[in-house]
Amino acid sequence: MSKVTCHQSISLDGFTAGPNQSLQNPIGEGGMRLHQWMFDTAAFMRMQGQPGGSEGADSDIVEELGSNRNVGAYIMGRNMFDAGRGAWDESWKGWWGEDPPYHAPTFVLTHHPRAPIPMQGGTTFYFVTDGIESALRQAKEAAGDKDIQIAGGADTVRQYLRAGHVDELNLHLVPLTLGSGERLFQDVAGLELTITRVIDSPTVTHLTYRVGLR
Amino acid sequence: MSKVTCHQSISLDGFTAGPNQSLQNPIGEGGMRLHQWMFDTAAFMRMQGQPGGSEGADSDIVEELGSNRNVGAYIMGRNMFDAGRGAWDESWKGWWGEDPPYHAPTFVLTHHPRAPIPMQGGTTFYFVTDGIESALRQAKEAAGDKDIQIAGGADTVRQYLRAGHVDELNLHLVPLTLGSGERLFQDVAGLELTITRVIDSPTVTHLTYRVGLR
Repeated sequence: MSKVTCHQSISLDGFTAGPNQSLQNPIGEGGMRLHQWMFDTAAFMRMQGQPGGSEGADSDIVEELGSNRNVGAYIMGRNMFDAGRGAWDESWKGWWGEDPPYHAPTFVLTHHPRAPIPMQGGTTFYFVTDGIESALRQAKEAAGDKDIQIAGGADTVRQYLRAGHVDELNLHLVPLTLGSGERLFQDVAGLELTITRVIDSPTVTHLTYRVGLR
Repeated sequence: MSKVTCHQSISLDGFTAGPNQSLQNPIGEGGMRLHQWMFDTAAFMRMQGQPGGSEGADSDIVEELGSNRNVGAYIMGRNMFDAGRGAWDESWKGWWGEDPPYHAPTFVLTHHPRAPIPMQGGTTFYFVTDGIESALRQAKEAAGDKDIQIAGGADTVRQYLRAGHVDELNLHLVPLTLGSGERLFQDVAGLELTITRVIDSPTVTHLTYRVGLR
């Protein structure tokens, strides 16, 4: 059955981005270190057409994420689509080049109406101006039996968590503290989760939860 | 070799106590739920001289904690010793009855000088008025080759983390969010941890880290 999933890399003190987010550095100071575990994997290098990288549990997770096998649609916030670009730019087609890694309908939450942008490889960006419920409805319709993944950023994830719409939460818990920045769970009270999978690697702990709300 | 350790039960959103801590409820609303996994174990029931409880990974952890085998001294904050008691009370001997579960010298950080209190079973409470460095020095001397455990609360743990004095941090990650309360890692930036053990149970994830500071 179709479910709503989400993957987030998170510091031990709960941040998905570092402090002082800016145009030049949209994930904040130190924020990139939360994603380093991915860049170091063989699976990531293969996606870039490069040799090298480490095999193992982390690489298997990246492989699983990159294969998108069960994901029929994505939802992302406007900031993820164009963070740091300042004013809304009608010519901007996202960060990911002509063939974005989504390969599925991707619904972008925004206040600016815009025609869909079909990209290569199966990704089409749709712009949703009437809120998270509408985006989820459209994503579900597009995904059919497959899953919907909330791609991010943290603010978008939080909105779906608070509304009780996330079925499965995957946290990649990175063993460092940032001290400040953007908290994934800021004011997200009352989640009751069930541990469904723990994958232990030397560098990151991969936690999968089924999500309920009190 | 002697090391400084610490165990904390923590919510997925980083709280070790819930909101609205008060005289009546020193661990705050919902805070007790962070410790429920312990109360449910067979090891905990045995410590109370009771039958029942669940065997398994959680119980093994409680057994390990309760046996205190490698702990030669404890350090705790004043609030842990007498939280909710209001004014300093010279007759107060802690929450744990005549035979506290520490069975070792236990150094209480306070601003109030007081003579040591020898209890049954090997626990003696010493009151340290000249700060965390002094308490650690005294605890190390008392512990010899054994470990020093920072018993809590979160504020005391934070002080030792910030000062770079904690060698090993054990987090018992409880899959729920409290939304507000006392954050273990409030303003603790720059920790660089190494995952040394992950024990997966259906109810809690037990994470052990070696702690470094950038």
